[in-house]
Amino acid sequence: MSTVKMVEYDEASDDVRAIYDDIMQSKGIDFVPNFWKTVASHPPMLKQLWGEIGQVMADGALDPLMKEMIAIAVSATNGCDYCINSHTTAAIAKGMTPEMHGELMAVVGFFNKTNKLSDGYQIEPDVKPTID
Amino acid sequence: MSTVKMVEYDEASDDVRAIYDDIMQSKGIDFVPNFWKTVASHPPMLKQLWGEIGQVMADGALDPLMKEMIAIAVSATNGCDYCINSHTTAAIAKGMTPEMHGELMAVVGFFNKTNKLSDGYQIEPDVKPTID
Amino acid sequence: MSTVKMVEYDEASDDVRAIYDDIMQSKGIDFVPNFWKTVASHPPMLKQLWGEIGQVMADGALDPLMKEMIAIAVSATNGCDYCINSHTTAAIAKGMTPEMHGELMAVVGFFNKTNKLSDGYQIEPDVKPTID
Amino acid sequence: MSTVKMVEYDEASDDVRAIYDDIMQSKGIDFVPNFWKTVASHPPMLKQLWGEIGQVMADGALDPLMKEMIAIAVSATNGCDYCINSHTTAAIAKGMTPEMHGELMAVVGFFNKTNKLSDGYQIEPDVKPTID
Amino acid sequence: MSTVKMVEYDEASDDVRAIYDDIMQSKGIDFVPNFWKTVASHPPMLKQLWGEIGQVMADGALDPLMKEMIAIAVSATNGCDYCINSHTTAAIAKGMTPEMHGELMAVVGFFNKTNKLSDGYQIEPDVKPTID
Amino acid sequence: MSTVKMVEYDEASDDVRAIYDDIMQSKGIDFVPNFWKTVASHPPMLKQLWGEIGQVMADGALDPLMKEMIAIAVSATNGCDYCINSHTTAAIAKGMTPEMHGELMAVVGFFNKTNKLSDGYQIEPDVKPTID
Repeated sequence: MSTVKMVEYDEASDDVRAIYDDIMQSKGIDFVPNFWKTVASHPPMLKQLWGEIGQVMADGALDPLMKEMIAIAVSATNGCDYCINSHTTAAIAKGMTPEMHGELMAVVGFFNKTNKLSDGYQIEPDVKPTID
Repeated sequence: MSTVKMVEYDEASDDVRAIYDDIMQSKGIDFVPNFWKTVASHPPMLKQLWGEIGQVMADGALDPLMKEMIAIAVSATNGCDYCINSHTTAAIAKGMTPEMHGELMAVVGFFNKTNKLSDGYQIEPDVKPTID
Repeated sequence: MSTVKMVEYDEASDDVRAIYDDIMQSKGIDFVPNFWKTVASHPPMLKQLWGEIGQVMADGALDPLMKEMIAIAVSATNGCDYCINSHTTAAIAKGMTPEMHGELMAVVGFFNKTNKLSDGYQIEPDVKPTID
Repeated sequence: MSTVKMVEYDEASDDVRAIYDDIMQSKGIDFVPNFWKTVASHPPMLKQLWGEIGQVMADGALDPLMKEMIAIAVSATNGCDYCINSHTTAAIAKGMTPEMHGELMAVVGFFNKTNKLSDGYQIEPDVKPTID
Repeated sequence: MSTVKMVEYDEASDDVRAIYDDIMQSKGIDFVPNFWKTVASHPPMLKQLWGEIGQVMADGALDPLMKEMIAIAVSATNGCDYCINSHTTAAIAKGMTPEMHGELMAVVGFFNKTNKLSDGYQIEPDVKPTID
Repeated sequence: MSTVKMVEYDEASDDVRAIYDDIMQSKGIDFVPNFWKTVASHPPMLKQLWGEIGQVMADGALDPLMKEMIAIAVSATNGCDYCINSHTTAAIAKGMTPEMHGELMAVVGFFNKTNKLSDGYQIEPDVKPTID
C-alpha cells in the first residue's frame, strides 16, 4: 500500500493502461511495479515520468547498466528503500555481477565519508573545473 | 582555509611527506590538494584515507572513470561543493566527455526525484533482490 | 515500539497526562500518537515540542492546511516514514484533496531534481534576495 | 561559473534561444538565469526541464505562490544555495510577505527537527493513510 | 547578508534587544551573531529559539562541550556551512582540543559511510533496543 | 535479508571466520550481526571496515561511549534504521542512561532545526575558526 490508492491494471483508463503495457513490455515483466501504479494516481505525473525515464535511461554516452548503477548510488545515498530494491533488481537483470556490486558499494561508502569530512572541515576547492 | 590549520608540505613530518609525494605522483599533479593537507592535521586519518582510496578506486570489476562518475553522483546528491569540484576535475582527466557528463547529471537528477516520490508516497517494495 | 519505552496514558504523570488530553482534544482523536508517547520519555522535550507546535502550526499568514502540506514536503525530502504518514493523515483531515496531493508530490519531486542539478553543476546564484 | 561552460544567449542554437526567450518572457526578466544557461549545455535536459516546470508550476489545485513556497521548503531542507536564492526571489515576486516567509521558515525548521526525532527514536506509524 | 534584512542592535525593539544582550552575555562575546540577527526578523522565532537553546544546551547528563561536539556531528552530516563554523568555534571555546576534533571527524566520517552501506544493502536490524 | 546473500559463520572462509570471531569477542556477543555478515559478501570491504572501526572507536581523546552517541547523532540525522538500532543498543551496553539519551535526542533535534534555518535564510558565517 502507498499513501494513495494504487491504480490497478483492470481499473485503469485506456491512456494509463497503454503506459502500463509499455512498462511491462520494455522491462520484460508481467506485472506493473508499485511505483508506477502509485504515480498513476496523478496521471500527468505518470505520463511525465515514463517519458523522462525513457529519455534518461536510453543507451547513449553511458550504457544502461552504468546508469542503473548510478541510480543505486543515488538511492543508497538518499536511503530510499523502494529505490534501492528496484534498481538493484534492475541492475542484476542488466548484468551486474557480485564483484561489480561490491565495488559499487565500496565507492558509495567511501565518498559518503569523504563528502562529510570535506564539509565538516570546510575545505575550500583547489580549482573549479569547466567542461567545454 | 579549513577549520583546522592545513599541514603544508614543507612543515610536514617525514611520514606525512611520503604520503604527499605518493598523492602527487599517482594523481600526476604538482601540488597537494586541500583535502589531503586538511586531513593530515589528524595523521591516522590521512594514512587511513590514502590507503582506503587506493583500494576502493583501483581498476577492478568497475573501471576508474566509472568509479569517478559514481563519486560525482554521490557528491551531487549530498551537495558537497569541494567534492563535486574535485571529482569532476578528476573525471575529466580520466576521459569523461561533455556528453557523458550531461547524461550523468540527467540520471542523478531523475533518480533524486523518484527517490523522493517513492518515499513521499510510502511505496512498498515489489520484491527484494538477492545477489548471490 | 520505539527505542525507548513509550509512556502510556495510564502510567503517565499528571503533567504528562494533561498534555496528552490537550493533544487528543486539539487533534480530535481518541488515542495518543506514538510520537507523543515516545517523546514523553524525556518530559522536557514533550513540553517543549507541544508548546512549539501550537505556535508554529497556528493559523496565521499561512493557513494550517498549507503548513501541513509544507510538513509533507519536508518529510518526503527527508524520507521520514513516520512523518509522511502522520502529516498526510493530518492534511487529509484538514481538506487536502487528491488533486492537491498529486500536485504537491509533483512539486516536491521536481525541485529535489533541480536542487541536485544546481549543486551537481555548482551553479552560482544570479542574485541574492532580501526580504524587508 | 558552473562546472560546465554556460551557453550564452548570443552563442545559443535557434532551439535553445527560443527556450531562452520563453523563459525571460514567462518570468518577466531580461536575462537568462545561470541555471538555464548551465543545463543548456545538455540540450535534451534544457528542453525536458523547461517543459516539466511549466506543467508542475502551473496554477491548479495549488496556486503558484504556494508551489514556490514548497520549493523553498524543499531547497532549505536540502541546503541548496542556488535554489534557496532563486525560489525566495520568485516567491517575493509572487507576493510572499515577510510574515509568510517567517512562518514558512518556522514550519520548515520545526519539522526538520521532528523528522529526525521520529527517525532517531525509530517511532512506528500509528496508521497508514490512503487518499482515494 | 541573509535572504532577509537582519535586525541590527540599534534598530531592534526593546524585547529583541533584551535577548541580544542575553546572547552576548551568555556567550561572552561583544557582537550579535548573524544567526540571531537573522531569526530576529521573525520575532516569535527568535524568542522560541533562544529559550529552547538554553534548555537544550544546559549542563545536564551530558556536558556542554559534548553537546557542542554533537552539534558539529549533526552539522557536518547535513553539510551546513554556517553551523559547522559556529559550532566549531564554540567547541574550541569550551575546550575541544585538536585531538578531540580529529577523533570527532573520524567518527563522523566512518558512520556516514556505514550508514550508507547499511541502507545500500538494505540490512535488517538484528534486534530493536528499548531504553527503560 | 539484505540485497546480497549474507555469509553465515559455517560457510565462511578461514579469513572471514577469524574476523567473525574477533567481532563476537570484542563486542561480547555470541552471534555475528547482519551488518558484518552482509559486508562479508565483499571480503576486502569486511577487512577494511573491521580494521577502521577498531581504530576509529578506540578509547582516545574521546571515550567509547561518547563516540557511540556521536554515531547515534549521525545515524538519526541520516535516518538510517539499522544504524540507529545497533548504535543505540551499543550505547546502552556502554552505559548510556535514559537521561543521557533524552538529552542527546534533544540536541540532535534542535540542531537539525537550526541547520535548516541557517541554510534556508542563507546566513553568512560570522567568522571561520582555525584549530591549531
